[in-house]
Amino acid sequence: MSASVFDDLRATAHAAADAADVETLAHFRTRGLLDDNKDAGGYDPVTIADRAAERAIRVVLADRRPDDAILGEEEAATPGTSGLTWVIDPIDGTRGYVSGTPTWGTLISVRDDTGPIYGIIAQPYIGERFEGGFGHAAMTGPRGTTPLACRDTPAIEDAVIFTTFPEVGTPAQRRTFEAVADRCKLVRYGMDCYAYALLAGGHIDLVMEAGLNPYDIQAPIAVIQAAGGTITDWTGAPAHDGGTALAAGSATLHQTALTLAAGATA
Amino acid sequence: MSASVFDDLRATAHAAADAADVETLAHFRTRGLLDDNKDAGGYDPVTIADRAAERAIRVVLADRRPDDAILGEEEAATPGTSGLTWVIDPIDGTRGYVSGTPTWGTLISVRDDTGPIYGIIAQPYIGERFEGGFGHAAMTGPRGTTPLACRDTPAIEDAVIFTTFPEVGTPAQRRTFEAVADRCKLVRYGMDCYAYALLAGGHIDLVMEAGLNPYDIQAPIAVIQAAGGTITDWTGAPAHDGGTALAAGSATLHQTALTLAAGATA
Repeated sequence: MSASVFDDLRATAHAAADAADVETLAHFRTRGLLDDNKDAGGYDPVTIADRAAERAIRVVLADRRPDDAILGEEEAATPGTSGLTWVIDPIDGTRGYVSGTPTWGTLISVRDDTGPIYGIIAQPYIGERFEGGFGHAAMTGPRGTTPLACRDTPAIEDAVIFTTFPEVGTPAQRRTFEAVADRCKLVRYGMDCYAYALLAGGHIDLVMEAGLNPYDIQAPIAVIQAAGGTITDWTGAPAHDGGTALAAGSATLHQTALTLAAGATA
Repeated sequence: MSASVFDDLRATAHAAADAADVETLAHFRTRGLLDDNKDAGGYDPVTIADRAAERAIRVVLADRRPDDAILGEEEAATPGTSGLTWVIDPIDGTRGYVSGTPTWGTLISVRDDTGPIYGIIAQPYIGERFEGGFGHAAMTGPRGTTPLACRDTPAIEDAVIFTTFPEVGTPAQRRTFEAVADRCKLVRYGMDCYAYALLAGGHIDLVMEAGLNPYDIQAPIAVIQAAGGTITDWTGAPAHDGGTALAAGSATLHQTALTLAAGATA
C-alpha cells in the first residue's frame, strides 16, 4: 500500500471521527437523553447519539471512500469492492456514555484480508485520540501529542489489569478472568475501550474482555499492535472477529496470562 | 458568615486547587512514577504527586487562611483557631491515577462545627471542577460552566448506581451494597470521587461506598448537598467523619436505598 493511500485512510478516519464528535457531544450529559434497551435480560442501551454518530461516520466514508465496505454497530453492513473494510463503533461504552463518565469512545478502524491495519480510539469530551497503524502510534490530547508505547512489566505480580465488568462474560469466563486477575497487583473495572487506550499508552499491563463484537475490538487491536503490545483471544488466536480478548504490554506477559487462562479452562 | 468570607473561602479553595493541579499534572501518566504501598494486605499506593500536591495546597492555605485548621491525607493535622477546618485529599483515587484513568480527583473542602460548608471535586487532566456550597453548585469544564443539579429518579428499578470496587468494604458490607445494587437498572464501578461528581451533575442516581476517611467524602458531601442531593452513611447518620456513604439524587430514592440497606443488615 502506498504512502498516499495510507495518508488518505488516516485522514478519512480523522474526518469520520470529527463528524462523530459533533453528534456524540451534542447529546453527552444532556437531560432527558432517552435510550432503547437492546437486552431483554439486562440493560444494554442505544441512544440517538449512537445512531446519529454512526450515520455521520458513514456519510464521510461514502463520500471519501465509496469503494470500501463498512461494518458498524448500528446499521446493516455495506459491501465494497476495494478489499478494505471500515469497522466502526460510534459509541463504545454506551452504559458509560448515558452515565456521564468520560471513558466511552468512538472506534474507527480499517482492515484488509489480514486484519486491522489502522485504528482510532477517540474520547471527544476529553479531546483525546489514540491512533495506531502504518508504523505510527500516538495520542493527541489536552496536553499535546505524545507517542504511544506499551510498557514491559515482566512479572504478573506487578501487573495492573483492567476489564469492563466484574462479571466478565459467562460464569466460566469469569473464572478464567479471575485466574489471571488474582495474580495481578491491581484490578480495575468500568473503562470500556478506554482500557485499551491506557494499555497502548504504557499506563497499564493487561486487559481481558469477553462477549466482544468485531467493532468493539478491531480499533483497539490496531492501536495496541502499533504501540508494541500483543493482543489475541484467550486461546492465542486472532481477536479481530470478536469473542474474547487478552491484551498485554509485552509478549512475555501475554504468554504468562495465556498460560494461566488455559490452566483455568483445562 | 458574611458574603466576603464566602468569597474568600471559595477563592482560597480554587487557589489551592490551582496549586495542586501543577503537581498532579506534572506526574500524571509519566513513565517510572514510583509508589509506596500503604496496605500490607493489598495495594494502596501513594506517590510523590500525592505528597507534593498536599504540600502545595497547605502552602496556599497557610498563606491565605493561617487561622484555619487543616486535615489532609498525607500530613499530620494542623490545628486552628477560627472554627473552620480545611479537609483535603490531594489525589482521591490514587489507584486510578497510577493507572492513567482520568477519573481521580483533588478534593478540597472547608467545614465548621456542623459539617462541610463548601467543596470542590477537581479533575485537572480533563479540566473540570465540580463545586458546591454557599448556595452555589456548578461545574466548569472543557465545554464551559453549567449549574449542577441532581436528578430525581423515583423508582430504584430505573436508577444507575456507582461504587468504586465490586468488593465494597467487608463481606457484610458487600452484601448490603448488593441488596441495593441488585434492584438498580445499571451498576458501574471504578470511578472513585468522580461518581459523586456525576451524581451532582444529574447523570446518575446513587453512590454507595464503604471504608471512607473524612477527607474522601467531605468535599463530595458539600457538592452533592448544594446540587440538591441527599447523602448520609448507610444508617442515615451524617457521613462527613467517614465510614460508609450513601448518596442519592433525591430524598425519596435515598430513603428507598436506606430501607433496603437496613433490611440487608437486619
